[in-house]
Amino acid sequence: MKQLNVDLNERSYPIYIGQDILDRSDLYRPHIKGRQILIVTNQLIAPLYLQQLCEALSEFSVSTLVLPDGEQYKTIETVESVFNKLLEEGHNRTTTLIALGGGVIGDMTGFAAACYQRGVAFIQVPTTLLSQVDSSVGGKTGVNHALGKNMIGAFHQPKAVIIDIDTLKTLPANQLSAGLAEVIKYGLIRDLEFFAWLESNISQLLACDSDYLIEAIYRSCKHKAEVVEQDERESGVRATLNLGHTFGHAIEACQGYGSWLHGEAVSAGTIMAADLSRRMGWLARADVERITKLFEKCNLPVNAPSDMSPEDFIQKMVLDKKVIDGTLRLVLLKSLGDAHVSGDIDQNLLNETLSAV
Amino acid sequence: MKQLNVDLNERSYPIYIGQDILDRSDLYRPHIKGRQILIVTNQLIAPLYLQQLCEALSEFSVSTLVLPDGEQYKTIETVESVFNKLLEEGHNRTTTLIALGGGVIGDMTGFAAACYQRGVAFIQVPTTLLSQVDSSVGGKTGVNHALGKNMIGAFHQPKAVIIDIDTLKTLPANQLSAGLAEVIKYGLIRDLEFFAWLESNISQLLACDSDYLIEAIYRSCKHKAEVVEQDERESGVRATLNLGHTFGHAIEACQGYGSWLHGEAVSAGTIMAADLSRRMGWLARADVERITKLFEKCNLPVNAPSDMSPEDFIQKMVLDKKVIDGTLRLVLLKSLGDAHVSGDIDQNLLNETLSAV
Repeated sequence: MKQLNVDLNERSYPIYIGQDILDRSDLYRPHIKGRQILIVTNQLIAPLYLQQLCEALSEFSVSTLVLPDGEQYKTIETVESVFNKLLEEGHNRTTTLIALGGGVIGDMTGFAAACYQRGVAFIQVPTTLLSQVDSSVGGKTGVNHALGKNMIGAFHQPKAVIIDIDTLKTLPANQLSAGLAEVIKYGLIRDLEFFAWLESNISQLLACDSDYLIEAIYRSCKHKAEVVEQDERESGVRATLNLGHTFGHAIEACQGYGSWLHGEAVSAGTIMAADLSRRMGWLARADVERITKLFEKCNLPVNAPSDMSPEDFIQKMVLDKKVIDGTLRLVLLKSLGDAHVSGDIDQNLLNETLSAV
Repeated sequence: MKQLNVDLNERSYPIYIGQDILDRSDLYRPHIKGRQILIVTNQLIAPLYLQQLCEALSEFSVSTLVLPDGEQYKTIETVESVFNKLLEEGHNRTTTLIALGGGVIGDMTGFAAACYQRGVAFIQVPTTLLSQVDSSVGGKTGVNHALGKNMIGAFHQPKAVIIDIDTLKTLPANQLSAGLAEVIKYGLIRDLEFFAWLESNISQLLACDSDYLIEAIYRSCKHKAEVVEQDERESGVRATLNLGHTFGHAIEACQGYGSWLHGEAVSAGTIMAADLSRRMGWLARADVERITKLFEKCNLPVNAPSDMSPEDFIQKMVLDKKVIDGTLRLVLLKSLGDAHVSGDIDQNLLNETLSAV
């Protein structure tokens, strides 16, 4: 098992990465201060892991809540059902919520923990690659709104993140690929050597080789932790983690949440960001091809949906959280391994990208 | 105009207290960083002050949202209507929300600001005495749940609090009295001299004398600020501000939110806390009578609703946010001017109080 720490003063916490650790009670115990626990999971995950986790935590008073599965349920209404459960069962301020599932479960459980009695503890147990390398670390929680993704939420750090890579063995192939999109992202924005490592070892990762998975997750979480430590509330560098996300969120919003996986939308969005970076004169054509090839090897989409017009994109992109007083700000690549947030976007070049990809 | 500051490092902010200051744009301008503003108010307040505030802020892009009036609308659903408005009008992360109204408007607007895009700025412009001396200062925001008051919320500090006492001249007499309940609370929990000052000057306050009101509000806000500075997230001394509130919240929950004013419930609840403090051997009978007399002078209720049984109280009180692992914790008075949180409540004495008052 590997461990690393997110250092945020009194909000610091460990990330444990290993095999067969989901039910290791010694990893949970130091981070649970009361007697009450609510495990929040979904219909897909519950039959796989819920019972073993409940048994591991049998020294506590454990309740469980099984939510429907899918991004389309990442709403305030679903979070209200968590509040109802907590209040009906008399959970108090010392309760601990455990998010057992992918990013949707983690984001909603974290948001419920942020708001219940103005903030209670929670632990992330991410079961998808995407949530293991991205959403479970860093404290971004929230839900979608019909008019925009993740528009309602809170910064609320977990007490611990427990990543059991054995959960990836039951993960559908397209979900593993979607997670790899975010892994590749770390290479692109801040670690060219890691990007090259991924190019060399992508087949081992797609085959779920444990050692390679642990290494890729560890390096991804380390990048995420470093960025979050520098800029917890995204007033600066943390925004670079959104490479491909402004385009990607527009795709998700237009197609209806859940029809494209988040990682798939980020994949196409990253190619668009790379394409625009090339038109800005920063990336070479060969760089863009290298990125495209790696995403293609992962069976990820490298083109936007054919039914989306440039106007469809613009209409959604102006709602992006990085927009400041009407100015669109995009994460672009100055070179491979070096991302910047740019508010100085040439509208003509942007239109070319939106028409081309 | 008087000014004091709440010192919370990077979350510090000023409180302005004066006459005819609601539309002084120079007080708002330093605390607004973007171009967008959403003023949230209610149907009662809008006809009185909304236009003058909009005109004062005409240099900005101002939208307004008028909510229904009343504690029964302090719900997640109403906060969702604030999110809808913000998203429909394309408000971004630099937007500023302004809460123009009483505690319900302040709590909901603050909670909307806490969660919109994971946190935007807001300014409190409280128009009731209760919100001026209590809820607008300290960053507690939130909504009620059918199973408990203020159960869903966030700690989110405002950028400024602008208290115009002229708004109290249009306030119904029972609302002024309800606010005085919280003013008296500060004397009881930490300032016996202020309590005595209130005993001497209660008639001037009930007559809305400006100088006395400014003095009472200033001293109340100063107490609130000092307590919040010591314990922003209520892990200790801040809980003493809840004198009378555990009983009071039970009354509000049992009677249906809105049928008793919050300050009225706090008044009866404070008498119950004083009664229990006497039974614990801490207060003299004369102390309790002194408190009762002052509340009576304010035309505030000093008895619980006759239709509430001890069981009704207990059932609601176990849901209190101060409960830890099943142990009820109450704010009691060791002496006049000295409150403590006690987890060591004699169940028999509590039952005596619940039966007696």
